Amino acid sequence: MALAAAGRVLLQAGSRLGRREVVDGARRFANKRVEVEADEAAGIAVMKLKNPPVNSLSLEFLTEFLISLEKLENNKNFRGVILTSERPGVFSAGLDLMEMYGRNPAHYAEYWRAVQELWLRLYLSNMILVCAINGTSPAGGCLMALTCDHRIMADNPKYTIGLNESQLGIVAPFWFKDNFVNTVGYRTAEHALQLGLLFPPAEALKLGIVDEVVPEDQVHSKAQSVMAQWMAIPDHSRQLTKNMMRKAMADNLIKQREADIQNFVSFISRDSIQKSLHTYLEKLKQKKG
Amino acid sequence: MALAAAGRVLLQAGSRLGRREVVDGARRFANKRVEVEADEAAGIAVMKLKNPPVNSLSLEFLTEFLISLEKLENNKNFRGVILTSERPGVFSAGLDLMEMYGRNPAHYAEYWRAVQELWLRLYLSNMILVCAINGTSPAGGCLMALTCDHRIMADNPKYTIGLNESQLGIVAPFWFKDNFVNTVGYRTAEHALQLGLLFPPAEALKLGIVDEVVPEDQVHSKAQSVMAQWMAIPDHSRQLTKNMMRKAMADNLIKQREADIQNFVSFISRDSIQKSLHTYLEKLKQKKG
Amino acid sequence: MALAAAGRVLLQAGSRLGRREVVDGARRFANKRVEVEADEAAGIAVMKLKNPPVNSLSLEFLTEFLISLEKLENNKNFRGVILTSERPGVFSAGLDLMEMYGRNPAHYAEYWRAVQELWLRLYLSNMILVCAINGTSPAGGCLMALTCDHRIMADNPKYTIGLNESQLGIVAPFWFKDNFVNTVGYRTAEHALQLGLLFPPAEALKLGIVDEVVPEDQVHSKAQSVMAQWMAIPDHSRQLTKNMMRKAMADNLIKQREADIQNFVSFISRDSIQKSLHTYLEKLKQKKG
Repeated sequence: MALAAAGRVLLQAGSRLGRREVVDGARRFANKRVEVEADEAAGIAVMKLKNPPVNSLSLEFLTEFLISLEKLENNKNFRGVILTSERPGVFSAGLDLMEMYGRNPAHYAEYWRAVQELWLRLYLSNMILVCAINGTSPAGGCLMALTCDHRIMADNPKYTIGLNESQLGIVAPFWFKDNFVNTVGYRTAEHALQLGLLFPPAEALKLGIVDEVVPEDQVHSKAQSVMAQWMAIPDHSRQLTKNMMRKAMADNLIKQREADIQNFVSFISRDSIQKSLHTYLEKLKQKKG
Repeated sequence: MALAAAGRVLLQAGSRLGRREVVDGARRFANKRVEVEADEAAGIAVMKLKNPPVNSLSLEFLTEFLISLEKLENNKNFRGVILTSERPGVFSAGLDLMEMYGRNPAHYAEYWRAVQELWLRLYLSNMILVCAINGTSPAGGCLMALTCDHRIMADNPKYTIGLNESQLGIVAPFWFKDNFVNTVGYRTAEHALQLGLLFPPAEALKLGIVDEVVPEDQVHSKAQSVMAQWMAIPDHSRQLTKNMMRKAMADNLIKQREADIQNFVSFISRDSIQKSLHTYLEKLKQKKG
Repeated sequence: MALAAAGRVLLQAGSRLGRREVVDGARRFANKRVEVEADEAAGIAVMKLKNPPVNSLSLEFLTEFLISLEKLENNKNFRGVILTSERPGVFSAGLDLMEMYGRNPAHYAEYWRAVQELWLRLYLSNMILVCAINGTSPAGGCLMALTCDHRIMADNPKYTIGLNESQLGIVAPFWFKDNFVNTVGYRTAEHALQLGLLFPPAEALKLGIVDEVVPEDQVHSKAQSVMAQWMAIPDHSRQLTKNMMRKAMADNLIKQREADIQNFVSFISRDSIQKSLHTYLEKLKQKKG
């Protein structure tokens, strides 16, 4: 119920943002930060992350993304979604540190609820989610990929994927951890989470973080062919199976949702953590400068 | 207790079916659908599935199989069982769709209880179970193999193994799923169960669905040599270890056994599911015709 | 609380044993059975097991080891510990069968509490634990390695590692099993624990029992370089992550600690088990003789 309520709030907050147009026979509706190419006849939509420069998961981005996803979820004609980046090179840099630095507790709480919502909506989606990882994908970017039913990564050794929170002086929440453990196994997760490891495509494939690695220019065509394979399965069998696999883990967050928010707010508000983030942000600025 | 009671019912129902003879110095007792070559001196029995044409797990088959297994389990001289097919090419096609199509709820309930019983008896067997997979082994056939302590598959790429329920428009029950997750890991299970994937021997080996792949004519000799390795371990250590690994998962079904039956009956009785099965059965008929 | 209390008892029992000296600028404190090379400036200590002939985990050894570990844990300057054997060839032969054979129940209980304490202290250590496995490492020796954050094994095919309890006619306790399952996965654990398998380095690497295999003369330099990599991670992130991964499993033993001791005492006191141990010990004697 908390889930549903939060969803409604996000929908109201974002309802003024949607625009629609028809391009090339397929419907396309773009908010500022998410471009959706929706082929209703085929039952497939492509959601392109478009939050320059690095597709950070800012609060505004999350709000828009969740509204777009909700629209597709509520339209029975859509059975599959391909998630990808509008700008190859970066899939998503993950959570937006600017939402977690120098703000007040109310803001932190609002932000964290939206991050939880993102995970819950993607992880429990009734649609087939195929992730076309056409760029680097650390932390929250990796989490988005982990929620998908099938992950295809561009074969470019410059791109990495993983949960690197500990390198930034923060900690992945327990539900990032649970999703990661279920994907790569307990020991690999324990090792990688402590060291904050990021993996190039070949290693990510070996560990099961992604399901396939293909040449960069074939990521999208591969996503389409994989989607066709998944769409051949009767929806009710696939959905019941997915729910059987995922419900317990999602329920575990839903049950502890408010405590998890309080946890995040009190952790991120600590002087020591704000200092860690400050140091990290200064380093980023110098790199750019 | 439900387990023990059901076992007794099955034993009574089947007690009129057993025949015994002595062949080549070893005792052989064959029902119509299960042939048992029992070498009491060696402590090993070979159980050959013999339910033409494809070793479907019909209610009659299950009843006879469980009686044969019970006899061996209750004879302290038997420490190991090799499960295999009497007719190479098909290990078992799995659950018998004819038991799940066009019958009444009481029949569905009786059938499902027998399927649960099969899993519980095999999964918790005190004996060493070695599976000699000398043919294709989808769905319930795969489940039988998954309960064994060691699995050897014939190296014939025409043979496949896996839980392909979702391809038929049905869903593997949670205990099939739990047994599969524990064998191949969560992520591989989630992926394979949604798509209903069947794997050829080389892939099944890589994923851990089977432990060894050997040339087709060496499946039985390999099963014998593997059995010898297992029999070198003190029974009490092996049994306590097996119980420590498996008891919780079996208890989870025993606890929910009646609810699981109700669940199955109401699912399989749905018009939409009966229609899916009808379509599938028609397709099978056309293939044969 | 039981944990803390037991720790205090062990500390008192052992406080008369410590000696300290300064060698080569680094502090070195050696008990009879554990040699600690403590480089406080670097924040790293090397703990060398030294309980000839095979580094058995005797009660005296455990007491001394836990005191040394406690000293390091309580000194904020130490962030990392490298565990290794003072005598290459044997890392540790594991639990001392002489503590489990021909003694009285009170002794068995005291011994088992110390074994539990070893696992709890290592598994929940706030320090980075790197294991330099420079010799063979069965049973309890393997368990010590499994508690570490990173495991490096010497590439010598004569050395093996694994939980081989069932070969001795005994059974690994549930927390050995849990730690092993989380390291190698459920199915590999079920298989290896029933057969009591010991693995040479290459296979141990493949299964994830160890993280790296290096030439024998590079085990220590590798341990140092791995430690440097781990020390680059902020302690609070690493510790919170480690705790998130491990707390539930350790709590599970803490909760059942007394029952687990009773279990062990009653199991090991059985005539049949004492007879198994007698047979095994006679075999060992004959080998030596």
